[in-house]
Amino acid sequence: MTDHTGPTDELIADVFARGCTSRAALEDVAGKWGLLALLALGEGAYRFNALRRRVSGVSEKMLSQTLQALERDGIVHREVVTAIPPRVEYTLTPLGIQVAAKVRDLVELLESAVPEIAAARAAYSKGD
Amino acid sequence: MTDHTGPTDELIADVFARGCTSRAALEDVAGKWGLLALLALGEGAYRFNALRRRVSGVSEKMLSQTLQALERDGIVHREVVTAIPPRVEYTLTPLGIQVAAKVRDLVELLESAVPEIAAARAAYSKGD
Repeated sequence: MTDHTGPTDELIADVFARGCTSRAALEDVAGKWGLLALLALGEGAYRFNALRRRVSGVSEKMLSQTLQALERDGIVHREVVTAIPPRVEYTLTPLGIQVAAKVRDLVELLESAVPEIAAARAAYSKGD
Repeated sequence: MTDHTGPTDELIADVFARGCTSRAALEDVAGKWGLLALLALGEGAYRFNALRRRVSGVSEKMLSQTLQALERDGIVHREVVTAIPPRVEYTLTPLGIQVAAKVRDLVELLESAVPEIAAARAAYSKGD
């Protein structure tokens, strides 16, 4: 938690508070599509269709909604590149680069824990 | 990404791969309820109803499903405490403590970025 001063009074951001902007942003970042899109954009700029192929399994509509929410939060930058034909590229903003780095830390931990998670799942389904 | 050896051959965990256990675990951890439940349990043990109050806005059903998925992944530990009346307590496993720490890093970044996110949202709605 960090103190920050709003236009009229001092506020403390609290992700547990339903009205807090940090919770709204967490909802945009969270969810597998937000996390996977951030992770992919951490690799570099993507055009929409290439990003959709990278984040395999996402529908056009879900990816479009996810990117729009992240753009609104100032995490993703959408740029129309004037070329023939014109193309739209998505990149991370400076804030997005920071967020994607935290997402990567989380994902790398989960990837490295796969044997442990798989063992827990096997034990759980046997009713241990 | 981390190499790990499975029972029969060598596998590389890849969160982008639809069949990978790390992606399945990411889906359980991701989502605002998974993230908020992990964050709350990072504060200490919780009984179900107290956890539900902490993660304000979650329904009984959603919290129950979230905890069950995290228990199955070996991230959350559910313990029936023999007392009168008996009670059920949720805690983080050693893996869960590591995962919750990464979630906390992400959330603290978003909390500290609230002024920036709020400004981006205001600019976006004005069509800048």
